[in-house]
Amino acid sequence: MAESTNTSRPQLKIRRVSLDTGRENVVVISRHSSALQPEVFRGFSRVELRSNSHVLLATLLITDEDTLVGPDELGLSEPAFRRFAEPVGRLVTVSPAASPESLDAVRNKIQGRTLEPAEIDAIIRDVTHYRYSDMEIAAFLIGSASFMTSGELLALVEAMARAGTQLRWPSPIVVDKHCIGGIPGNRTSMLVVPIVAAHGLTIPKTSSRAITSPAGTADTMEVLARVDVNVEEMKEIVAACHGCLVWGGHVNLSPADDILISVERPLSLDTREQMVASIMSKKLAAGSTHLLIDLPVGPTAKLANAADAMRLRKLFEFVGDHFGISVEAITTDGRQPIGNGIGPVLEAADVMAVLSNDRAAPADLREKSLRLAAHLLEYDPQMRGGSGYARARELLDSGAALKKMQEIIDAQGPCHCRADIGKLTFDIITADDGEVADINCLQLNRLARTAGAPIDKGAGIKLFRKVGDRVEKGQPLYRIYAFDQSELDLAVGAAKTNPGYTVVNSRTSSSRTAP
Amino acid sequence: MAESTNTSRPQLKIRRVSLDTGRENVVVISRHSSALQPEVFRGFSRVELRSNSHVLLATLLITDEDTLVGPDELGLSEPAFRRFAEPVGRLVTVSPAASPESLDAVRNKIQGRTLEPAEIDAIIRDVTHYRYSDMEIAAFLIGSASFMTSGELLALVEAMARAGTQLRWPSPIVVDKHCIGGIPGNRTSMLVVPIVAAHGLTIPKTSSRAITSPAGTADTMEVLARVDVNVEEMKEIVAACHGCLVWGGHVNLSPADDILISVERPLSLDTREQMVASIMSKKLAAGSTHLLIDLPVGPTAKLANAADAMRLRKLFEFVGDHFGISVEAITTDGRQPIGNGIGPVLEAADVMAVLSNDRAAPADLREKSLRLAAHLLEYDPQMRGGSGYARARELLDSGAALKKMQEIIDAQGPCHCRADIGKLTFDIITADDGEVADINCLQLNRLARTAGAPIDKGAGIKLFRKVGDRVEKGQPLYRIYAFDQSELDLAVGAAKTNPGYTVVNSRTSSSRTAP
Repeated sequence: MAESTNTSRPQLKIRRVSLDTGRENVVVISRHSSALQPEVFRGFSRVELRSNSHVLLATLLITDEDTLVGPDELGLSEPAFRRFAEPVGRLVTVSPAASPESLDAVRNKIQGRTLEPAEIDAIIRDVTHYRYSDMEIAAFLIGSASFMTSGELLALVEAMARAGTQLRWPSPIVVDKHCIGGIPGNRTSMLVVPIVAAHGLTIPKTSSRAITSPAGTADTMEVLARVDVNVEEMKEIVAACHGCLVWGGHVNLSPADDILISVERPLSLDTREQMVASIMSKKLAAGSTHLLIDLPVGPTAKLANAADAMRLRKLFEFVGDHFGISVEAITTDGRQPIGNGIGPVLEAADVMAVLSNDRAAPADLREKSLRLAAHLLEYDPQMRGGSGYARARELLDSGAALKKMQEIIDAQGPCHCRADIGKLTFDIITADDGEVADINCLQLNRLARTAGAPIDKGAGIKLFRKVGDRVEKGQPLYRIYAFDQSELDLAVGAAKTNPGYTVVNSRTSSSRTAP
Repeated sequence: MAESTNTSRPQLKIRRVSLDTGRENVVVISRHSSALQPEVFRGFSRVELRSNSHVLLATLLITDEDTLVGPDELGLSEPAFRRFAEPVGRLVTVSPAASPESLDAVRNKIQGRTLEPAEIDAIIRDVTHYRYSDMEIAAFLIGSASFMTSGELLALVEAMARAGTQLRWPSPIVVDKHCIGGIPGNRTSMLVVPIVAAHGLTIPKTSSRAITSPAGTADTMEVLARVDVNVEEMKEIVAACHGCLVWGGHVNLSPADDILISVERPLSLDTREQMVASIMSKKLAAGSTHLLIDLPVGPTAKLANAADAMRLRKLFEFVGDHFGISVEAITTDGRQPIGNGIGPVLEAADVMAVLSNDRAAPADLREKSLRLAAHLLEYDPQMRGGSGYARARELLDSGAALKKMQEIIDAQGPCHCRADIGKLTFDIITADDGEVADINCLQLNRLARTAGAPIDKGAGIKLFRKVGDRVEKGQPLYRIYAFDQSELDLAVGAAKTNPGYTVVNSRTSSSRTAP
C-alpha cells in the first residue's frame, strides 16, 4: 500500500537521547505530544519512524519528563539514532508499526510449512536490520526448532553469511578451526593459530566472547592483546603474520547470528541445525576454505556419545560440501577440562606456558593443540601425508610458535583491560583419599562464572588434579579466584554443595567429594 | 541457591521516572553508576531488583542523562515503580536476572513434553507477575501451539482463571454470552444484556476492547457510558440492574490472558486451544454458570465451515463440563456484517435504534439478538421451554429493554470520550447493476480500522446494501467516515482496490465491483 507523503499527521523533530538500549531501537515521546494518539500508542508498542529517506521500526516509551523530550520532539535512543542515520532536528512522522512482511513466512513456518530460500533470506535481512522484536525472533527460532529441512538449513546458512561482512583472502588456502564448546579451559585456538601461522598457512581466526561459559577465546586473547580489531586492521595483521586471533563480533561476521543467539540462549534453544547454521554462516563469511571442527564427547560435554557426534558431523559435512568448504569434524575427549585454568587470565597463563615449553605447562592442552594443528598443517599441499604432527611439534618446541604469537600480539596491539589474577582465593579440598574418577564440566563452568569470570578476567578456577590423579584427604582439588567477596562466597558455597569432582575411594566403591 | 543479604554489591536509591513502558518493567541506571558492571549489564538486558521485601524482574536501560538518574540512583519506570511497591529512596541491589524457574517447563514443552498442572500454574503465575519477557511468552505460546493435551488445556484454563479477580454472585444462575468475533458490527451483547436483565436474570457482562477489529463491545458501549468500572462498582450496578456492560480489562479478569494475547496477536497465533483457554478462563473467573457461545460461520469469518465450528463447540463443551459451567455453543450466519454500522459510534447508533424500535433499525441485528436472548432466557427455570423468543420480543417491543439499557447507562455513569461521527466522508459506489452476492468481513474490518476506528470512535463505515440487495450502477454501497484526511485517503484508496463487495450482474456471471 503506497502511503501519501503529504500526510496530515504532525511531524516531530529528532532529538538524540542518551539511552543505551542494546540491540533494541527505542524512541521516547512526550505525553503531551500532538503526534501521540493515546489509544494506539501505548508504552512499549512498536512504531514506525519515517523521514524523507529512512524508515525504522522501534519500541515506544511515553514520558512526562520535559528534560528528555519536548512535545514537538521525538527522542531517539543511541542505537535508534545510529541506525536511523538522520540528523538532530530532522522532521519525522511516527505511526503504529506494521510487522515486517517476512513475518508472514514465520507464521507459515509455525503452522508447519517449509520455507523457500527467498523467504528465509527476507527473514534474515529483516532480523539483521533490527526489524524484528525479540518475540518475533523467538517465533522464528521456535518455529524452526521443531523441524528444518536440509534445504532450509542451506538457505539459512547462506542468508546469514551474506547479511554481514564477507571476508576474502588472497591465499587459495585459508584454514580455520572451531570447537562447539562446553569444555572448560579448552583454549586450543590460541596454540593452533601461532603453530599454523608459523608454518606459513593463512589462518585468520575470529572467535566469540563467552555467552554462557566463563571465557570465550576472544575474552582470553584479550588478556594478551586487543581483539576488537576492524576488517582493515585484520587484513593487515593477517598479511603480516599469516594469522590473527580477533573478536568476530567487531568484524560483523554473520551479524544475524549474534542477534539469533541473544534470543536462543535465554530460551536454551540449541538444535543441531541452529548450531550448524551459526558456525557455518560465520565460516562462510570468514572466507575459510578448510575447516577443522572439534567435537568434544563426554558425559557433561555438549555431545554425550559418539552417535550424537556422528549426526552432527554429517550435518557439518553436508553444509560444507554444498558451499565448497572442506570440512573435517573430529571427536575429542570431552570428559574433563583441558588445561588447568578456567577463566581468561588463568587460561592465558596455560597457553603461554605451553608456548614457552614451560615444564609445568598442562600436557593435555599441549597434546590436543598439537593434534589439531597437525590436521590443519596437512591442508598444505606441500606437506607429506602423516607428517603434520611432527611439524606441529617442531614449530612448538623450537619456539617458532611462541615467536609467532608475540608477532600477532604486537600486531593486534596492547589491550588496556585489567589482567591481574583474583586476589581472593579459596581452596576446595577432598574429604577422603582416592582417585579422581570424574570431573563435571558443567559444574566447573558454573563455579568459575559465579566467581566472576569472564567479567572479572582474573576470576576463575585453577585445577590441581585431573581424572586419574591420586588425592589424599585434606589435599586441594582446585582453587577458586575472585575479586568480590560476595562472589567468592557464592562460588565457595556452591562448590561445597557440589564440588564437581568424583573421587573413587579404594576402600568404598565411590564417593562424591564434599569438603 | 540462597543469596547472602549482606552483599558487598553497591546499593542504589529508588527514583521514580516518568516513563510509560506499557506492560514491561523498565529501569534506568546511570552510565556512571558504581553498581553498573558494564560487561554484564547491557542495554535491554534483564535484571533483578531486590529490596528487603520485594523482588522484581525488569529490562535495563543505561543513560548518561543526569537529569533522569544520578550515579547512586536507580530509575523505575511507572509500571516497574507500581509493581515493585517500594518507596522512593529505598535501597535496592541490581543483579543480572536469572530466568523465572517455570521457564524450564517451557523449554520442556518446546522439546515435546506434556506439562503437569503445577507446571502450567507456575508459568501462568510468573506471566501474570510480569516475570516473563515477551520472547519468553512467545516461547510458551509457540511451544503450546503445535500440540496441547486436553489435560494441559484444563490446567491452563484453571491457572488463568485463578491468576486474577474471581467474581462470585449471590444469584444461583449467572448467564453470559460470548462471540468468538470476526463479524463487523455484530454488537448483540448490547441488546441481549438489557433484554435478559429486564427479565430479571443476572448477566454481569464483561467485554474486551478491540485488538485487531474496528470495535470491541467495550469500545462501543463506551460511546454511551463509562466502561472502566471496578469490581465494587460492578457489583453495585449488577445488584441494582441485574446486568452491566463493562470492560473486562479494568476488573482484572484473567489478566494472564491479556498478556498472552498481547503476544499472540502480533504473531497471529490463534489455535483453538488458545482461543478456548482465553474465553473459558474469563468466564470461569467471572462466575458465569450458563454460557451461550456465538460461533459465526462464513467464508470470511473465523470459522469457514460447520466442521470447524463443531470441533470448536466440542472443545468449549469439554471445558465447560469439567468446570461445571453449562455451555451451549450455536453456529450463526457469518457471511456478512450484522447491522449497518462498523466502528463504535455507528454501531452504538444501530443498537439504540433496535432498542427504540426505530423502523430504520437493522433487522438482522434485531433478529440475531432476539434469538440469542431467547436461549439465555430459557436458562430461567421458571420459563416454559420454547417460550424464550416470544419473551425476548415482548421485552424489546414493550420498551422494557430500552428502559433497562438506560438504567444500566445511568448506573455506569457518563463517559467523557468524544462521540461525534466522523466529519470527513466518502461514498463507495457500484460500477454496475446487479445483486450483492457477497460481503468480505475481513476487508470491511480492515477498511474501518484504516479510517480510524476504534481510536476515533466516530470513524468507520455505514453499509447501505447487504447480501441479496439490488444495486444500480452509481449507487453507493457504503460510506466511509473519518476525522483525519490522510486516514480517509488511505481507506478510500484501499476500498477502490478492493471494496469488499461482490455484485453479481444479471448479464454477466459475476463481477467484483470496482468503482
